[in-house]
Amino acid sequence: MNSLNGLNNISMLTELYEFTTADGYFNSPVKDTVAYFDLFFRKVPDKGGFAIMAGLSQVIEYLKNIHFTKEDIDFLREQGISDAFCDYLKDFKFTCDVWAIPEGTPIFPNEPIVKVRGPVVEAQLIETALLMFVNQQSLIATKANRLVRASHSTTVAEYGTRRAQGFSQAVLGARAAYIGGCSLTSGIIPQKLFGIPSVNTMIHSWVQMFDSEYEAFCEYARRYPDDCTVVVDTYDTIRSGIPNAIKAFNDVLVPMGKRPNSIRIDSGDITYLSKRARKMLDEAGFPDCDIMASNSLDEYLIGDMVSQGAKVDCFIVGERLITSATSPLFSGVYKLCAVEKDGEIIPKINLSENVSKITIPSSKSVYRLFDTESGKAIADVLTLDGETVDDGKPYTLFDPDFTWKRKDIERFVARPLLVPIFKQGECVYDEPSLNEIREYCSEQIDTLWDEVKRFENPHKYYVDLSKELWRVRNRLIEEHKAVTK
Amino acid sequence: MNSLNGLNNISMLTELYEFTTADGYFNSPVKDTVAYFDLFFRKVPDKGGFAIMAGLSQVIEYLKNIHFTKEDIDFLREQGISDAFCDYLKDFKFTCDVWAIPEGTPIFPNEPIVKVRGPVVEAQLIETALLMFVNQQSLIATKANRLVRASHSTTVAEYGTRRAQGFSQAVLGARAAYIGGCSLTSGIIPQKLFGIPSVNTMIHSWVQMFDSEYEAFCEYARRYPDDCTVVVDTYDTIRSGIPNAIKAFNDVLVPMGKRPNSIRIDSGDITYLSKRARKMLDEAGFPDCDIMASNSLDEYLIGDMVSQGAKVDCFIVGERLITSATSPLFSGVYKLCAVEKDGEIIPKINLSENVSKITIPSSKSVYRLFDTESGKAIADVLTLDGETVDDGKPYTLFDPDFTWKRKDIERFVARPLLVPIFKQGECVYDEPSLNEIREYCSEQIDTLWDEVKRFENPHKYYVDLSKELWRVRNRLIEEHKAVTK
Repeated sequence: MNSLNGLNNISMLTELYEFTTADGYFNSPVKDTVAYFDLFFRKVPDKGGFAIMAGLSQVIEYLKNIHFTKEDIDFLREQGISDAFCDYLKDFKFTCDVWAIPEGTPIFPNEPIVKVRGPVVEAQLIETALLMFVNQQSLIATKANRLVRASHSTTVAEYGTRRAQGFSQAVLGARAAYIGGCSLTSGIIPQKLFGIPSVNTMIHSWVQMFDSEYEAFCEYARRYPDDCTVVVDTYDTIRSGIPNAIKAFNDVLVPMGKRPNSIRIDSGDITYLSKRARKMLDEAGFPDCDIMASNSLDEYLIGDMVSQGAKVDCFIVGERLITSATSPLFSGVYKLCAVEKDGEIIPKINLSENVSKITIPSSKSVYRLFDTESGKAIADVLTLDGETVDDGKPYTLFDPDFTWKRKDIERFVARPLLVPIFKQGECVYDEPSLNEIREYCSEQIDTLWDEVKRFENPHKYYVDLSKELWRVRNRLIEEHKAVTK
Repeated sequence: MNSLNGLNNISMLTELYEFTTADGYFNSPVKDTVAYFDLFFRKVPDKGGFAIMAGLSQVIEYLKNIHFTKEDIDFLREQGISDAFCDYLKDFKFTCDVWAIPEGTPIFPNEPIVKVRGPVVEAQLIETALLMFVNQQSLIATKANRLVRASHSTTVAEYGTRRAQGFSQAVLGARAAYIGGCSLTSGIIPQKLFGIPSVNTMIHSWVQMFDSEYEAFCEYARRYPDDCTVVVDTYDTIRSGIPNAIKAFNDVLVPMGKRPNSIRIDSGDITYLSKRARKMLDEAGFPDCDIMASNSLDEYLIGDMVSQGAKVDCFIVGERLITSATSPLFSGVYKLCAVEKDGEIIPKINLSENVSKITIPSSKSVYRLFDTESGKAIADVLTLDGETVDDGKPYTLFDPDFTWKRKDIERFVARPLLVPIFKQGECVYDEPSLNEIREYCSEQIDTLWDEVKRFENPHKYYVDLSKELWRVRNRLIEEHKAVTK
């Protein structure tokens, strides 16, 4: 079988134990139970103050198209999946309700970012794919936004395809980077599929292919007079690269009435070299020629360069963005939080041996409270379904673990974050365009205090529980501890 | 356009600048020049002593199938690619020669692991995809082998789909993990496509779905009496999970004449809990019931657990394997090293501002020298094409940077590492099966000294240049420095 084509089978993008579990439910008394699952994450990458939701569009695409071919089902049968369940998969129809926090929204640990309600068999089966899509893109959107913040409004271009952990990350990672604020991508498929603007530059081999650097630059300028970017560090940036670039611009572009686009520096002390390059280009009459910088950049290097006055107009970021190199994991999990029994919601908890892994039970809503005056986000509050946060009167926030930590707030607006995506299996969500998501993301990040946005020791944004929800959680913990005492 | 289907277009898995560069060559005097490119990497992940070659099978598949559709070409035309080049792409035929080091071979920085010879236009266009496939899988094969070495022959199962950076990594990463020595995978597609044996276990939601943990275990045992694994940490491992597991095994499996497969511990102090669990299971008459451990494991945690006598029969490794979390980059690059001119090979160099980025010029061969007596690998030697390493007489190795560092060796066998993969565009390689690759990998790692394999400060394996190659490199450096002085 062709392995690259085999990668297209998204419906089977899951783990054997999702099928054995679903099959088990299907053949057990809980078969028709309606269950509630929360998808949430546990830690912000890079110890940051917030993450950015992304990947929902691919979740929607997956859920709209999920189906199992005869070949898939035959394979599952060989793995011990029951005939009854194989028959069920033949005509599989997704009928769950799904809510999610829209892409581009700042998100925080432990709050539901996707919520699924429906027959437990279906709700279970989709776990792995949902996690993968949300983890994959939220990771990169979050990282990209760190780069963009570090760059202080300098253009950041995503250039990671060659070092991506697979081609789906090369493509969807580029999408996520754009949501997070990158302006450009090197990848052809993200340009073609999503309309992300392209970045282009000269490759070192171009310089090596010609008998001299000057000749290589002239040849490129002749071929691409309207988009002429040359890489200047193949032999010696200051003594050879920049002088040859200036000479080629003067000899080829100027007579054509054209202007150079940029030079690219890919090695050495880029802060220093960029200042020297800026001066040389300005003095040669090319103050409009941009300087691009590349070479294993990340938010820390970019922040340093900016603070030292580097003259860079575009940061090209490859491997350390597309892999989120300093923190390559997004810790999304998918946990059962309730079931329905005789029309009632029965909350469920997972206690675990690690306190940080104890789940928040029941079917929940998530509200973000914004300060009326500043427009800034104050806290997120999780409530039981049906509860509302009345923003007409003062509200007391309290830390769910250290309950004596309280804060009274007034003059705020409460906005529910979870929006309906599927109703009984039908998509009811009007997806925004990628540019709308990107703009919304930027606006929403503006609602966060600077203290939440800083890289070192960011302020821990409040994600609190309503009193009712807190009581349910505590009751379940006590009940289980009583049983196992 | 459907974004997930759009991911199938591997021929376009590249960056815009590969097309602008190739188009530029196509419309320049170098159009028909035959070029040589080396794919090599610069640093071993995790500061290890060696990496493992993987991803060649997907490179072959890509090169066999590369083609451009009308829609692709129309898109490229809109990006400014010339009509002449668009016409050329319509009937694109890959005609290069390709050599590579076989999958599963230990590899070292700076040696060519893939070598391409052919018309510069073609050889350039394939850069991004080649890098992506080799970087992606070599990263994970290398990481997997670290886990396997740390586990001291305990089974290691890959369980990373949900945290993979995209579904192609979920699938091809599982393949690479198997090459590196993992025994099992959770992913359905890797099982189906590559025949990797599956691992199955119980999910926490199963336990929560039933009114009690005991009932949940009984239900699962009834459904899967031949593959009964239960997760024991949902409420309390020692006081609830293990006692309920034993009770369910006794009440359901034993009367059926069946034996439990395993229990899984997913939180808490796994070393301690596994010892307690082992004792409880043994005393209850289930010494044959395995113990699986999971919870963000990596080679350091596994090594610790093994050294402390944890009673674990299978380490389940998810996120930290599939992302190579502590070192998520494989630093492969693809560099022009020579061109042909009037039948002669003209070596090319890239000097760069960073000494570590200076390339090794010319068309080269790679030999691995094995000690005749111990069978251990002594060094790799890069030579000019046509040179041979005569293992019939003593040979002097010398460090290419610190040339006074020398070592005379005798009684060795020299084995060329690069094997022909494509001849003038035709695949000439008889691909081994995945199991053969995995076995070969294990054998080849046995040829490395323990000093190269250790995690902390591994011995730096020699990758030396022949005298002739060293002279060519030095001559080019001197020539370029003379020009830019």
